[in-house]
Amino acid sequence: MDIAELSTKILSSDRRALARAITLVESGRADHRAQATELLDLLAQHKRQALRIGLSGTPGVGKSTFIESFGLMLTEQGLRVAVLAVDPSSARSGGSILGDKTRMERLSRDPNAFIRPSPSQTNLGGVARRSREAVALCEAAGYDVVLIETVGVGQSETVVSEISDLFLLLLAPAGGDELQGVKRGIMEIADVILVNKADGELKSAASRTCADYSGALRLLRKRPQDPAGFPKALMVSALEDQGLSIAWDELQQLDAWRREHGHWQQRRAEQAQYWFHEELRQAVLSQLNSAEAQGEINQLAQQVASGEVSSVKAAGLALARLNITTG
Amino acid sequence: MDIAELSTKILSSDRRALARAITLVESGRADHRAQATELLDLLAQHKRQALRIGLSGTPGVGKSTFIESFGLMLTEQGLRVAVLAVDPSSARSGGSILGDKTRMERLSRDPNAFIRPSPSQTNLGGVARRSREAVALCEAAGYDVVLIETVGVGQSETVVSEISDLFLLLLAPAGGDELQGVKRGIMEIADVILVNKADGELKSAASRTCADYSGALRLLRKRPQDPAGFPKALMVSALEDQGLSIAWDELQQLDAWRREHGHWQQRRAEQAQYWFHEELRQAVLSQLNSAEAQGEINQLAQQVASGEVSSVKAAGLALARLNITTG
Repeated sequence: MDIAELSTKILSSDRRALARAITLVESGRADHRAQATELLDLLAQHKRQALRIGLSGTPGVGKSTFIESFGLMLTEQGLRVAVLAVDPSSARSGGSILGDKTRMERLSRDPNAFIRPSPSQTNLGGVARRSREAVALCEAAGYDVVLIETVGVGQSETVVSEISDLFLLLLAPAGGDELQGVKRGIMEIADVILVNKADGELKSAASRTCADYSGALRLLRKRPQDPAGFPKALMVSALEDQGLSIAWDELQQLDAWRREHGHWQQRRAEQAQYWFHEELRQAVLSQLNSAEAQGEINQLAQQVASGEVSSVKAAGLALARLNITTG
Repeated sequence: MDIAELSTKILSSDRRALARAITLVESGRADHRAQATELLDLLAQHKRQALRIGLSGTPGVGKSTFIESFGLMLTEQGLRVAVLAVDPSSARSGGSILGDKTRMERLSRDPNAFIRPSPSQTNLGGVARRSREAVALCEAAGYDVVLIETVGVGQSETVVSEISDLFLLLLAPAGGDELQGVKRGIMEIADVILVNKADGELKSAASRTCADYSGALRLLRKRPQDPAGFPKALMVSALEDQGLSIAWDELQQLDAWRREHGHWQQRRAEQAQYWFHEELRQAVLSQLNSAEAQGEINQLAQQVASGEVSSVKAAGLALARLNITTG
């Protein structure tokens, strides 16, 4: 593969080239990894940047409908929109939350939109790096907004918040009791909570839910990166296109304020550091992944299972046999 | 410290010796660690085993009242009971869920009970090893039942389930909607769900909640380690001592069935393997903890933050400078 040529095509917004490049960064092969690194280095020189918006919400809250309506609103304004999915759960099932593009039929046909389903990956470390690199590729391809979608499982919100400038939490209307269904950790990373389905029979429930979450957000500790009034909860109806432009205005205001006050820059710097530490952790742990290491480890694991040796002692033996010196 | 003497005292059920030994395994000092390992090796030869019961429940479900009532019921039957807490959240706050023994005033005065508050620890790896070793010490001291308490945060349930034979989930009565408040992962590791506070005004709500969870448990995939009818949901009132002996009967039946069918043995073997892999991971990651490593890493992190070098490249540089060869 001619990496310089691929780079040029991506910079000229060739969607097929972008798709090929994402496939490249998703590959686990060593030669592909080297090419991916070369490509990312070439593209990084152009320093193109999009507004990165993370989006989380459990199944059933209407994420696809929201992304379709929100994405189409942005493309109508002349913006170019990329949609990526981070879905560690699909790593297990082999499935893909965006696998079926027909879920966003109109947006997927829009020439100013790019939708990339989540890949089948085998570990969250891999998912994280692939997602970061896919975002960088979309930025290089000139997309103005990159939406990074995830379902609310395990550590995926952390991954998404660490590659996003803004984090949206999408909720469905519900009884007031259900507040505790949202993990506190997710509340704490949300910049804007959108209560979807504020239409038809659910409108009054959406209003109550929105008020409940507004109250809950006020109880959270004030974050230095928030102007007055943020984080906030808003009602939207993706189905009826209600509230989406207000939400977009709010997101833009928040983004502008953060850029003006240095928080955007600081956040991106912190994220780069976070990923440096994560890369380091994953690399160090990969010492245990070689065929030789796996052989030793499996053998010791048998002895641990049979009670011949304790887990602590076996760990010490494994390190000695693999010549790993620890601190 | 004379480790042989300490070992003898623990084997003769000296509570002060047990408390000192737990303090020893909690210590981060290298000489203490060596002593702890020596002590645990001495005690392991006696192969004493307790029934290890993990207990999880969010604040407010009445965990302390339950442990007090349940523990006193067991001691009245002539059993010796130890209560330990695994609380990674206290690592951050410096607090301790069992710090205030007055929460279990009667049980703490019972000569056949031993209550150990959770320590202030700095990482989950440390919490996990300390907890495993504290359980082993309680077993060596001749306790028949070891209750390992945790609050429902993050990975603490995983830690507790990986050192327990049985896992109890304690819940409060609630509206039917609230089912989703319990993370699926916790439902999946529960052997018995106890709906507490089945007394007074809440009795009918408890009955509904119990029925809801019974239904939810039936929807989970059948596990090979369960006899017919398990996992199951039961109602209890720790305040009024209702349902506790039924719960205890059920737990004993489950334990007996698993022992008879080889699942108990298999589970303990799998747990030993799990901890072997965890010890190994923590040891490998500790390569990054030395003062030298931290110096290099902090310096590179600065360059990453300023944009001089990418996170991936910086990770490669750090590994090279620290002479860490990865697979």
